[in-house]
Amino acid sequence: MSDPIAELVELLARLPGIGERTAARLAYHILGAEPAYAEALGGLLSDLHSRIRRCDQCANYTTEALCSICSDARRDGHVVCVVARPPDVAAIERGATFRGRYFVMHNLLSPLDGVGPEALPVERLRAWIGRDSITEVIIATPLSVEGEATALYLAQELAPLGVSCSRIASGLPHGGELEYTDQVTLARALEGRRKV
Amino acid sequence: MSDPIAELVELLARLPGIGERTAARLAYHILGAEPAYAEALGGLLSDLHSRIRRCDQCANYTTEALCSICSDARRDGHVVCVVARPPDVAAIERGATFRGRYFVMHNLLSPLDGVGPEALPVERLRAWIGRDSITEVIIATPLSVEGEATALYLAQELAPLGVSCSRIASGLPHGGELEYTDQVTLARALEGRRKV
Repeated sequence: MSDPIAELVELLARLPGIGERTAARLAYHILGAEPAYAEALGGLLSDLHSRIRRCDQCANYTTEALCSICSDARRDGHVVCVVARPPDVAAIERGATFRGRYFVMHNLLSPLDGVGPEALPVERLRAWIGRDSITEVIIATPLSVEGEATALYLAQELAPLGVSCSRIASGLPHGGELEYTDQVTLARALEGRRKV
Repeated sequence: MSDPIAELVELLARLPGIGERTAARLAYHILGAEPAYAEALGGLLSDLHSRIRRCDQCANYTTEALCSICSDARRDGHVVCVVARPPDVAAIERGATFRGRYFVMHNLLSPLDGVGPEALPVERLRAWIGRDSITEVIIATPLSVEGEATALYLAQELAPLGVSCSRIASGLPHGGELEYTDQVTLARALEGRRKV
């Protein structure tokens, strides 16, 4: 293709949730905006993968060898929260209640997609637990089939290390109405009840 | 800012219809995708404004001095359809029924935003009409307040040239139900009735 507008629409339409029409609207918006905008975004995207790497310890995205959380001495070095993906770290950090560190899996068990245990970075997690005498692991993979399977597998793999392993709670969200809650969530909320 | 992810989210969130959350989702998607994608999109955006220019005749976006429509000898050179923006040309072209050429205003009269008649490229349109003995001008600016004001102004300005000037029809859209049509559209549909 030699038409830059058609090329731009085609590339933008590959983004999740961006259809052909939205892509065209975005492309024309970028064309109508200041050239500096397209140049800034273009420069950033061109260098993105060379500037961003995975943290040597937690595998979250970072520009340094160690991410800002792993290199922050004020974080609790004995607790690690295991998440599936980098945005999950950002989500928990927004709450600002968790003071430990993270471990990003970048993958979940998914036999149907051909992702087996060998694709999980369990060895790296185990090595970190031994090296830094980590005492607690909170498994915060999603409450999906893949996330649950991965959590179960991790708990089994970490059991011999004698580390305290927990799973984030499942139940009604803040402000949730029983009437509009699905049966699985309701069953889990009942099962996970706590003494008051 | 020295965090490329935060920078990327900030730039993407400036696009129309893309909020902070969607921008973050897109940024993480790009990070998780093949580096070749970010590089292709980045390279395209960096060069976009230097590769794309406005057609010398119709002002639509093009990579050449004359756009593909203006340089196509099979188009009817006596009819010009005036539109507000480049995507409007693409919209009419999708219908493939109009065989004349286009004139892209890139602006509409909007006194409240400080856009007066001097901001409209009327002189360039007038010169083209004289140069190529254009006989018919179809004004296809939108049916908004600004589009209507611009259409009226254009018709007045072109009247002395003796060119046939028309406005696209206003009425019910294809498949439109009278029950769900707003009063202005209904009134216009009645006013614009045609003998059968």
